[in-house]
Amino acid sequence: MVGGGNDAFIGAIHRIAANMDGLIEFSCGALSINPEIAVASGKLLFLPDDRNYLTYDEMIKKEKALPEDKRMDFMTIVTPNFAHFAPAMMALDNGFNVVIEKPMTFTLQEAKELKKKVDDTGLLLCLTHTYSGYPMVKQARQMVKNGDFGKVRKIVVEYPQGWLSRLSEREGNAQAAWRTDPKKSGKSGSMGDIGTHASHLAEYISGLKITKLCADLNIVVEGRALDDDGSVLLRFDNGAPGVLIASQIAAGEENALKIKLYGEKGGLEWAQHEPNTLIVKWLDHPTQILRAGVNYTSHLSGFATHNCRTPGGHPEGYLEAFGNIYRNFALTLSARMEGDEPTKEMLDFPQVDEGIRGMAFIDTVVTSNQSDKKWTEFVV
Amino acid sequence: MVGGGNDAFIGAIHRIAANMDGLIEFSCGALSINPEIAVASGKLLFLPDDRNYLTYDEMIKKEKALPEDKRMDFMTIVTPNFAHFAPAMMALDNGFNVVIEKPMTFTLQEAKELKKKVDDTGLLLCLTHTYSGYPMVKQARQMVKNGDFGKVRKIVVEYPQGWLSRLSEREGNAQAAWRTDPKKSGKSGSMGDIGTHASHLAEYISGLKITKLCADLNIVVEGRALDDDGSVLLRFDNGAPGVLIASQIAAGEENALKIKLYGEKGGLEWAQHEPNTLIVKWLDHPTQILRAGVNYTSHLSGFATHNCRTPGGHPEGYLEAFGNIYRNFALTLSARMEGDEPTKEMLDFPQVDEGIRGMAFIDTVVTSNQSDKKWTEFVV
Amino acid sequence: MVGGGNDAFIGAIHRIAANMDGLIEFSCGALSINPEIAVASGKLLFLPDDRNYLTYDEMIKKEKALPEDKRMDFMTIVTPNFAHFAPAMMALDNGFNVVIEKPMTFTLQEAKELKKKVDDTGLLLCLTHTYSGYPMVKQARQMVKNGDFGKVRKIVVEYPQGWLSRLSEREGNAQAAWRTDPKKSGKSGSMGDIGTHASHLAEYISGLKITKLCADLNIVVEGRALDDDGSVLLRFDNGAPGVLIASQIAAGEENALKIKLYGEKGGLEWAQHEPNTLIVKWLDHPTQILRAGVNYTSHLSGFATHNCRTPGGHPEGYLEAFGNIYRNFALTLSARMEGDEPTKEMLDFPQVDEGIRGMAFIDTVVTSNQSDKKWTEFVV
Amino acid sequence: MVGGGNDAFIGAIHRIAANMDGLIEFSCGALSINPEIAVASGKLLFLPDDRNYLTYDEMIKKEKALPEDKRMDFMTIVTPNFAHFAPAMMALDNGFNVVIEKPMTFTLQEAKELKKKVDDTGLLLCLTHTYSGYPMVKQARQMVKNGDFGKVRKIVVEYPQGWLSRLSEREGNAQAAWRTDPKKSGKSGSMGDIGTHASHLAEYISGLKITKLCADLNIVVEGRALDDDGSVLLRFDNGAPGVLIASQIAAGEENALKIKLYGEKGGLEWAQHEPNTLIVKWLDHPTQILRAGVNYTSHLSGFATHNCRTPGGHPEGYLEAFGNIYRNFALTLSARMEGDEPTKEMLDFPQVDEGIRGMAFIDTVVTSNQSDKKWTEFVV
Repeated sequence: MVGGGNDAFIGAIHRIAANMDGLIEFSCGALSINPEIAVASGKLLFLPDDRNYLTYDEMIKKEKALPEDKRMDFMTIVTPNFAHFAPAMMALDNGFNVVIEKPMTFTLQEAKELKKKVDDTGLLLCLTHTYSGYPMVKQARQMVKNGDFGKVRKIVVEYPQGWLSRLSEREGNAQAAWRTDPKKSGKSGSMGDIGTHASHLAEYISGLKITKLCADLNIVVEGRALDDDGSVLLRFDNGAPGVLIASQIAAGEENALKIKLYGEKGGLEWAQHEPNTLIVKWLDHPTQILRAGVNYTSHLSGFATHNCRTPGGHPEGYLEAFGNIYRNFALTLSARMEGDEPTKEMLDFPQVDEGIRGMAFIDTVVTSNQSDKKWTEFVV
Repeated sequence: MVGGGNDAFIGAIHRIAANMDGLIEFSCGALSINPEIAVASGKLLFLPDDRNYLTYDEMIKKEKALPEDKRMDFMTIVTPNFAHFAPAMMALDNGFNVVIEKPMTFTLQEAKELKKKVDDTGLLLCLTHTYSGYPMVKQARQMVKNGDFGKVRKIVVEYPQGWLSRLSEREGNAQAAWRTDPKKSGKSGSMGDIGTHASHLAEYISGLKITKLCADLNIVVEGRALDDDGSVLLRFDNGAPGVLIASQIAAGEENALKIKLYGEKGGLEWAQHEPNTLIVKWLDHPTQILRAGVNYTSHLSGFATHNCRTPGGHPEGYLEAFGNIYRNFALTLSARMEGDEPTKEMLDFPQVDEGIRGMAFIDTVVTSNQSDKKWTEFVV
Repeated sequence: MVGGGNDAFIGAIHRIAANMDGLIEFSCGALSINPEIAVASGKLLFLPDDRNYLTYDEMIKKEKALPEDKRMDFMTIVTPNFAHFAPAMMALDNGFNVVIEKPMTFTLQEAKELKKKVDDTGLLLCLTHTYSGYPMVKQARQMVKNGDFGKVRKIVVEYPQGWLSRLSEREGNAQAAWRTDPKKSGKSGSMGDIGTHASHLAEYISGLKITKLCADLNIVVEGRALDDDGSVLLRFDNGAPGVLIASQIAAGEENALKIKLYGEKGGLEWAQHEPNTLIVKWLDHPTQILRAGVNYTSHLSGFATHNCRTPGGHPEGYLEAFGNIYRNFALTLSARMEGDEPTKEMLDFPQVDEGIRGMAFIDTVVTSNQSDKKWTEFVV
Repeated sequence: MVGGGNDAFIGAIHRIAANMDGLIEFSCGALSINPEIAVASGKLLFLPDDRNYLTYDEMIKKEKALPEDKRMDFMTIVTPNFAHFAPAMMALDNGFNVVIEKPMTFTLQEAKELKKKVDDTGLLLCLTHTYSGYPMVKQARQMVKNGDFGKVRKIVVEYPQGWLSRLSEREGNAQAAWRTDPKKSGKSGSMGDIGTHASHLAEYISGLKITKLCADLNIVVEGRALDDDGSVLLRFDNGAPGVLIASQIAAGEENALKIKLYGEKGGLEWAQHEPNTLIVKWLDHPTQILRAGVNYTSHLSGFATHNCRTPGGHPEGYLEAFGNIYRNFALTLSARMEGDEPTKEMLDFPQVDEGIRGMAFIDTVVTSNQSDKKWTEFVV
C-alpha cells in the first residue's frame, strides 16, 4: 500500500475491505510521504520491519527482489490524486498489478499513458469506484442490460454532501485541505471527488456513455480555490438526457449518492444510504422493492448474489461494497495466476477504461464551465 | 365556474377544494364549451337551471344583472390554458374577482395585460398553485425567511411524472390531448404544466427570484409536438445556483414533486408524496422531522398552523392544500367585503404576480432551449 | 348533528367529511348541551335560526314535524360516549337514520338494544370507524378475501399515540377530560377510544373475528382513572394468533395506527401515517408498493378505486377517508330512497354489528384485565 | 473455532466479523462433527494442517500443548445449541476464553454451570448477541441511561422473519432442520432463536429486567415440533409493561428486528433493516434522526462512536455490528493480557450473565405458554 498512514481516511477503509474475505493479506507498505508517520503506521498495522518501507520506490524495488511467492501480488495506491501516476507507472513497469483510488490520475494525459502501459503489460489496474461494488447497483445494471425497462430515456444522478459547508481546509481538516487544493486534487474539487463517482455510476448502471454536457460549477464557500458545488446537463449516446448534481456544501447531507433512471416501461431508483434496496418502478404495475440477498424466485441476477455475503435482512454496507471491488479483483488475479479464465462476475470491477472516462469527465466539465456555449463534447 | 364539466379532471378538484370549509358555495357555471355537456354537468351538480349557463359571456352578463347579494362573488376558470385570458378579462371588467388554474394565460403578453387589469380594478386574482397551499411548504418558507438556514446556497426542485410515457394523446386521453397540443397548451408542454409548479415552489419557499437559466427541453416520445421532459440550470437573485427537473415520461412516477434547499447552516427537504412532513437538516445537529398539525413548543409557524384542519397524525392531502388556496382567497375576499384588513396568513395565496412569473418562466425556458448560449436572462 | 359545538374536536371533522362530495347538506343541529354554545355554534355554521335547536329532543320532534322533503334525512351523533344511546334510539324511533361516533354506546347492553331497534325499524346506522374508509384499507381487505395471501396466520395491530403522556385532563384539555372520565367514556380509556379502532381494523381487513383474548391494561400516568395503555394477545376464529397494542402514553407518537397481517404466501402492511400506500410482501417475490388512485393493469380492487377522488400521487388523507364513510352511507341512503339496490361498494361502511363488536371488545378486555386466567372468551 | 464448516451459515459470518479489524487471527479449528467436512473446510480456509483438528477435544488438548504465544487466545463455538456446553466447559477448564453463539446453552442448568465456571476461572465468555453491537443501539442505551426520556414506560420489540413459512426442514434446509429439532435446538424454536435476541435487545437498551411475562407460543406450520411464532406480554422491573413478538412464519419479512421504547419525555425507535438510524421522538419537540458516524455537536455518545469505522453516510451493517462484538471482546482480552484496565466501551459486549437471562427467558416463555395463568414469574 502506498499512502494510507494513520493520519489518512481512505487507507484504513482499503485495508478493511481488502481483508474482509480472507483472500488478500496486507503484507507491505510505504504508508506515508512522512517517514516517521510511515514507519509508525506500519508498526501499528503489524507490518514486518523489513517490509515497512519509506517510499514506494523502495517498496517496488525491494519487493521485486523477493522470490516470486514472497513478494506482493499487487500494489494499492491511496495517496492524493497528484501522487497516483508515478507509483502506478513504476509498479506496472516492474510487473505489479495495481489498485488505485479514484480519480485515477491528476490529468487526462496521465490517464491515457497509464492505459497504454496497462495494455502493453497485460497487468490489471483496479479503480476503486466503491459504489459500483454494491449488489443492488449490479442488479440495476443487469436489469437495464436485459432490457427490462426498454430504451433508457432519462437519468438523474445526484451526490450531495455537506462536509465542505465551512472553510474546513483552514481549520485543520487534512482531507479538506488536499481535496480543495488544485495542486493536489487537480482541476476540479467536488466534480473530481464525487462527480466522478456519480458519472461512473450513471454510465455503469445504464451501460450508456455521456457524449456531451453543460456544466455549471460553483465556488460557494468564499476563499476556496476549486468548485465545491456543481450541476451538469448530460446527453448520453442513445440520445437520452440526464442531469448530474454534485455538491459538497449541501449542509446536513452525509453522503447521499442517489440515482434515478427511467426507461420506456419503468425505472429504477437506488440510494447509497439504503444500499440493500433497489426500487423498481413500472408503468403498468406496482413498484417493487428488490432487496440484496433475498432468495426470490428468479428476481436477482447472479451479478447481485455473487456480491452478497449474507442472507436478506442482514444489511451489508459501504465496507462490503468496497470489499466486493477487492474481492472481484483478487478472484480475477487468482484465476489468472492459476491459468483459469475469470468469470464475468469476477471481472466486474472498475478498470483503466473507467479511469480514463473519469478524467475526461473532469476535463469536460471544467471546459464546459468556462465556456459560454451550452454544450461541450465529451471527448476522451 | 368556467369549464370543469363532467368530462374534465381539475374542475371536480376545484369544487371539492372550494367547498371544503363551508366558506364558498358553488352557485353557477358555464361548465363546458359543449352546450350539452355544460347543461348536463350543471344538472348533475345541482346547479339551478337559471344559473346553469352555456357560455362564460352569458354567465358574466346575467350574474351581473342579479342583485349584488345574489350574484356570484368570484369566477373560477378551469379551462385549458388558451381559454383563460378572455373570460378572466371579461370577469374583471365586470367587477368579478377571479380564480384561475395555472399557468395563468396562454402567453406572457396576456399575463401582463391581466396584471394591468387587476391593478386597475383592484380586484383579486387567485392562481391555484396548489402545492404552495400545503402547511409544511408554508413552514419551509417561513424558516427560510427567518434565516434559520442562513443564506440560501443551492436549490434542487424536481417534478417527475410518468403519465405521458406513451402517446396517450392519441389513445383517447382528453387531458393528454390538450396538454400536448401547442394550440391549447402554449409554447411548452411539461415545463408549462409542471415546470411552472416547480419554479413557483422554488421561488415561494426560498423567497428568491430566478435571474437566468439554461434549459434542455426534450420531446422524448416520438410524434409529440411539445416537450415532455426537461432539465434547467438556474441562478437565483442572491447568486445561488439551482436545478429544476420536470418530466412527464418518468415511467412509474406518480406526481413526485420534491424540493431540496440548502443554506449555510442547514437545509430542508419536502416531497409532495408525504406532504405533512418537512425534513430539516442541520450542519451540526441531527435532522429533524417537522410534522403538520403537531403541537410542538415553538416549532411551527403560524402560517403552517393556520393551514391545518386536524391535529398531527391525521394526514391532510392534496385536496386540503387546494382547499387552503381557496380558503385564504375567500377569507381575504370576506375581509375586504366587510371592510376589514385581511391578515398576512389570509393573504398568503398565489396572485397575479406569480402568474406573470410563471408565464415568463415558460418563455425563458423555451428561448433558452433554442439557444446555443449557456445562459438566458429571465426577464418579465 | 347532535354535539359538535365550537368547543369540540370531532364535530368539525364530521362536517367537513360529510360536506366533501356535495351529497350531504348540513341543515340542522343541537350542537351542544350548553344552550349558549349550541346557539352560537349554529350561527357560526350558518344554520337557519329555526333549525338551530337546543336539544336533540327538540330537534327530532320539530324535524319530524317538517314536510318529508324538508326534514333532515339522518342525524349524526358526535357527543361523548355516554350520550350516544338516548338520541340514537329516539332518532330511530322517529324514523331517522343515524350516524354515530365510535364506540357506539356506553355499554354493551345499550349496543344490543340499538341493534334490535335498527333491525326492527330497517333504518341505517352508520358507525364512523374512519380508518376503514381509506382506499388502501379496502384494497387490503379485498386481497385477503381473494385469498392472495392464503390462510391468515398472524395479525399485529398497534395504535400508539402520545397525547395523554401528561395528566392533560387536569390542565384544561376538554377532550382529555371526558375521555379519561369513566362516567363519560365508559369502562375503558385507551382501549375504548383507540383499541376499538384497532380491533375493528384487524377484523375488517382480515375478515376474521376475535374469539378470545388476554389483556394487560395499564394506568401509566398516575392519578388517572382509566387505562391509558394496553396490550392484548388475540386469537381469531380461524385459529390465527394476533397482538393488539393501544397506547396513549407513547410520547412522541402522533396517531400511528398500523397493521401487519401475514398469510401463507405473503403479507401486508398498512400505516395510517402514509395511508395511500399498501405494502404487500411475498414469500417468493419482491415486496410491492400499491398506491391509491394509480391506474395499474389489474391491481386495484373496485372497492379501492371507488373510494379515491384523485389520480395517483395526489395524497388523500384522513378527511377523505372520513368522507368515504359518509359518502358510502349517503349513496346507500339515496339508493334506498329511490328504490334502488345499493352496490356492494356503497354498502361498505361500518354499521351496527361492528358497533356491537366494538362494545364487546371493550367488555372483554376489561374482564380479561381483571382476571388471573390467561384467556377470556370474546362473547357478544 | 468449533463448528462453522463450509456447510454452515453462521461460521463464515463469525470469521468475517472476527477478521474485520485486524485484531484477531483465525488460527485453528474443529470445523465440523463430520471429519471429512472438518478437514476440507479447514483447508479451504487456509488453516495449517497441524491446527486443522477433527474434534474440539483434540483442539483444546493440542493447543494447550503449544507454547503460550503460539496457542489460540480464545475459542469460538458456533455449533447448534445442544453442542455449546461441553466444548465451552472444556475450553474454560483448560484456560481458554470462549466466544459462543446465542442461545448460550441447551438448558438453563447448563447456563448456570457455565456461569459458575466463568466466575471460578476469571476467564471471559463472550456471547454474540449481534444486534447489541450496532452503534445506534449503543446510542439508544446511553440515552435511556442518561435519563433523556425520563422513566421508561413501555417497550415494544418485534422480530418477524418469514424463512420458516414452509416446512423447509423437510426440504433439505440444514439450518431449518436443526433449528426446528428439539433435540438440537432446545425447548423452544423461534423464541429460542430470535426471541432471545429480542429480549436481550429490550433489556440492553432499557437497562431494565423482565420480571414476569405471559407467553402465547404457536406452531403455525403443521408438522413442526417447536414454536415458529409467539407473542409475549412483559413486565419490567420498574413496573413498565412491554410486548415481545417473534415469528418465523411472517411471510415476506427478512430479519426485521425492531424496537420502540417510550418514556415520560419521549421515545426511540430502532430497526435492524436501517441500523445506522436512530429515530428519537419527543413529547414537545420534533422527532430527530440520529445517524451513526456523524460529527454532531454533542449528540452521539462515545459508546456509539467507538463502534463506528466510517464517517456518516457510509452505511455499516450486520457484519460490522458482529465485528464490534469481536472487537470489544478482543480489546478487552488484549488489555487484560497486557495488564491494562479495559475501558467501559471495550467491556460493552454480551457476557455470561446475559447468556443466563436468555436461557431463563426460554424457560419462562415455555412454562408460561403451558400455563393457564396469565403471568409467570421470570426467575433465573
